[in-house]
Amino acid sequence: MVASLRLPSVAHLFSSPSTATITGVSRRSPTILRCFHHGLFFRPQLFAAGFSAQSMASETQDRVDNLKNRVPTEVITPRSQDFNAWYLDVIANAELADYGPVRGTMVIRPYGYAIWESIQEYLNVKFKETGHSNMYFPQFIPYSFIEKEASHVEGFSPELALVTIGGGKELEEKLVVRPTSETIVNHMFTQWIHSYRDLPLMWANVTRWEMRTKPFVRTLEFLWQEGHTAHATLEEAENEARQMIDIYIRFAYELAAIPVIAGRKSKVETFAGACKTYTIEAMMGDRKALQAGTSHNLGQNFSRAFGTLFTDENGQRQHVWQTSWAISTRFVGGIIMTHGDDIGLMLPPKLAPTQVVIVPIWKKDDEKVAVLTAASSVKAVLQTAGIKVKLDDSDQRTPGWKFNFWEMKGVPLRIEIGPRDVSSGSVVISRRDVPGKQGKVFGISMEPSVLEAYVKDRLDEIQSSLLERALAFRDSNIVDVSSYEELKVAISEGKWARGPWSASDEDEIKVKEETGATIRCFPFEQPEGVKICLMTGNPAEEVAIFAKSY
Amino acid sequence: MVASLRLPSVAHLFSSPSTATITGVSRRSPTILRCFHHGLFFRPQLFAAGFSAQSMASETQDRVDNLKNRVPTEVITPRSQDFNAWYLDVIANAELADYGPVRGTMVIRPYGYAIWESIQEYLNVKFKETGHSNMYFPQFIPYSFIEKEASHVEGFSPELALVTIGGGKELEEKLVVRPTSETIVNHMFTQWIHSYRDLPLMWANVTRWEMRTKPFVRTLEFLWQEGHTAHATLEEAENEARQMIDIYIRFAYELAAIPVIAGRKSKVETFAGACKTYTIEAMMGDRKALQAGTSHNLGQNFSRAFGTLFTDENGQRQHVWQTSWAISTRFVGGIIMTHGDDIGLMLPPKLAPTQVVIVPIWKKDDEKVAVLTAASSVKAVLQTAGIKVKLDDSDQRTPGWKFNFWEMKGVPLRIEIGPRDVSSGSVVISRRDVPGKQGKVFGISMEPSVLEAYVKDRLDEIQSSLLERALAFRDSNIVDVSSYEELKVAISEGKWARGPWSASDEDEIKVKEETGATIRCFPFEQPEGVKICLMTGNPAEEVAIFAKSY
Repeated sequence: MVASLRLPSVAHLFSSPSTATITGVSRRSPTILRCFHHGLFFRPQLFAAGFSAQSMASETQDRVDNLKNRVPTEVITPRSQDFNAWYLDVIANAELADYGPVRGTMVIRPYGYAIWESIQEYLNVKFKETGHSNMYFPQFIPYSFIEKEASHVEGFSPELALVTIGGGKELEEKLVVRPTSETIVNHMFTQWIHSYRDLPLMWANVTRWEMRTKPFVRTLEFLWQEGHTAHATLEEAENEARQMIDIYIRFAYELAAIPVIAGRKSKVETFAGACKTYTIEAMMGDRKALQAGTSHNLGQNFSRAFGTLFTDENGQRQHVWQTSWAISTRFVGGIIMTHGDDIGLMLPPKLAPTQVVIVPIWKKDDEKVAVLTAASSVKAVLQTAGIKVKLDDSDQRTPGWKFNFWEMKGVPLRIEIGPRDVSSGSVVISRRDVPGKQGKVFGISMEPSVLEAYVKDRLDEIQSSLLERALAFRDSNIVDVSSYEELKVAISEGKWARGPWSASDEDEIKVKEETGATIRCFPFEQPEGVKICLMTGNPAEEVAIFAKSY
Repeated sequence: MVASLRLPSVAHLFSSPSTATITGVSRRSPTILRCFHHGLFFRPQLFAAGFSAQSMASETQDRVDNLKNRVPTEVITPRSQDFNAWYLDVIANAELADYGPVRGTMVIRPYGYAIWESIQEYLNVKFKETGHSNMYFPQFIPYSFIEKEASHVEGFSPELALVTIGGGKELEEKLVVRPTSETIVNHMFTQWIHSYRDLPLMWANVTRWEMRTKPFVRTLEFLWQEGHTAHATLEEAENEARQMIDIYIRFAYELAAIPVIAGRKSKVETFAGACKTYTIEAMMGDRKALQAGTSHNLGQNFSRAFGTLFTDENGQRQHVWQTSWAISTRFVGGIIMTHGDDIGLMLPPKLAPTQVVIVPIWKKDDEKVAVLTAASSVKAVLQTAGIKVKLDDSDQRTPGWKFNFWEMKGVPLRIEIGPRDVSSGSVVISRRDVPGKQGKVFGISMEPSVLEAYVKDRLDEIQSSLLERALAFRDSNIVDVSSYEELKVAISEGKWARGPWSASDEDEIKVKEETGATIRCFPFEQPEGVKICLMTGNPAEEVAIFAKSY
């Protein structure tokens, strides 16, 4: 039971700013700036990843050779035993991602990329529906741009990947592999925005990726969609920031079956360049919080820094009001860690690259033709109905091996067809989310309309069931607290603590230092009634949610 | 009539390897290696672009301010007067792209990006239909990888963008911003491919982009789709390479209305790592050739260099057979330069982000409501029918200005609706490809089924008409030659020369030196009959096409 493949890059995607900012957090510190867009942070002590090349071909070779002789689930560490090892085993065995040759980078393999494509497809439609256009910004920016930003936020530059040699020559001005887009966005906005008639200017890009550099030792690259908008008024920008977090909420609930809690970040956790940061927070299987998407109201902070002006209706020059918002491939990790179990991945049907796998079963050669014919026609029926279906007709593996393999890959439904099923014109259908015999139903008719309706109903049922299960898990692990003592108990039990909060930034940092938990958000949904701050005993307007996080 | 915005980056996308390799071409020279995938080359002397930042905000500001007071077409240099200036004016005025802050890079603006998205959508479907999966490879590779490749091809490294500083520290090993993917692809293939059962391994990615570095002075970045496959046999790889060039041919004819000539590259023009390079060659409006897409049969050259092995059915270890193929954003430039005219852009309906623009016309306020109501309902009808339609209801501009603007943007059809049209329940429809009154039809009924059918027919007609026109232009500019003298005359007249060819590489290079023309391809479609080499008088098996190229 060896978890032989370790993917530091993916794990890093789930570290939080907290670790790096245990002490001395100030609103304008570079650490907080790094949080811009989505608060992707990486825990330095987890792995010694860095800007260096690594060779692991032979290790991977061993892994694969071992894998060939095993039932796939054998190589997955039980989730309850070691959550992190389980997570990395799932990624390796389900072939979601692999190491890149540069330590800290990852190759996203077809199965993982297909999940990302499902996310893109949904969001791309939503972004366009809400008036955003896609465009492309180049990824090299002049070093002077960062210095401009650094005049606001000291110490940003130590994090960057710098191109110093181009065309065989030392460059006169170093280039930066753009870590975030504010500088170039504002550079272009100053040229494109002239009058209020040019506003709002809204763009998004669901197909681009970013190089994200990490302080000190590490670079990490991931894919994301990133949106930037400019508006004539604060109110419009605020509405935009809220609209986009709403889209993320709907995406999380409806597509990913992840019952995120949405809210506003505390002042300490808000990006220094933003007036407000909205977030969706998800509870992973180990009950740690994952910040799964953010939307920022940037106010005029960037437009003042870069001189992004427009002429209003009265002929006055004004700074534009901006927003930005992003979801990245870390969301794929969130799906794994929300729904997965000891068997492996469990995918919500609406995001699954394969929704139904058909496993034909035969012993004798004379059975094979009839079984495969029936299996193919079942496949055709489902495909025509718009269901993503795969027929695993290889004769390299036993049906039992295939059952395990596709369960490990998280395919929501399995259809089994054997000689007796062919005779009776029916199939056996098993649900991934209900293990063993309980999830298995015999004698479903192959008649197209019956089968199609049955499969669609089951997929809907699984989608709802995953959400309900995650919701129940989440709610049973959130404790209402009214004192710091109660908060400490809840956090020490690995739970989320929800309680009224109106204390100082210093108190917030003290909680982090003493418990490891941070304010994940002030949730939009607030309980009724009088609230007394759990820390100070003063009146409070809102409850906050505290939790340890990735 | 000042073409005030110049986009070196886009123009560079249309330079050819020829310029850099006028003398001393050897099959294994680094210059030819750079041709790998798609032969994107950049003419150094065109612009003094380099790895440096530039500031042009004020220039652009002037341009925009000037633009506001003009009819859009006024700022476009006539195509016949200066093709290059015309091209750059169209890109600037149709808002397809803009300068990036680093010289030689470009921002692809929403209108240009939407065309690229249409290309992606089509190809993504075709790639998946033919069994390819998308995946993502990280863009930093260790410098040692390039050295490995450089052992085959000297001098590759002078072209690269090198990251030498990461996280504020000098890196132990420099990282390369990956210019092509062969090294990392083979690095991963050696880990993923074990037996013949793992083959074919086929991936494509229509959503990624690449940094392409240019020798000496320049970096250029563009978006592309890139495919890589590995196979068990040469025959399979050859079929794959041909299948993919076939997809590119169909794409060019059916979507882009560009009548490319497809064929095989000469030995001199074939990428040194490839056994065969297939290409599609398009004739631009100035009659220069544009290499618009390539597909390579790589044989075992890369698998031998990287040790990419598999175990065949007999238990023998064998090197895999590989292909690669790509189309990039240069194709967008090809569309502009094939169909555009003095008015500006002209887009084939199947790729146009906006297929129909509706311009409402009113003078008095009491007319406005009725006209806009009718225009909105026409828009709804067409949108429901799946047509990409835009209603330009702004009251900032006159209808005449809008006519010019949308013609300049290349929208295939314009619908005009005025008060009298509202009364008569009809609209006026103008074709972009037939200027003036000739292209204008009055009294088309607003009745949904009539209007929808009429618009769809016209769009189909325009699509065919653009292809026919380009085909006629192409064919009237290809001259059959039977001697070198005839070839020289044809080339000096700016035409393409087609003639039998079985001469040496040295002769081919001599033609290039003396005429500036290269062999674009040995076309798949060959004339019947006996062929005598135009250069040597010896028997020839094929005709070749010679032309000057971008």
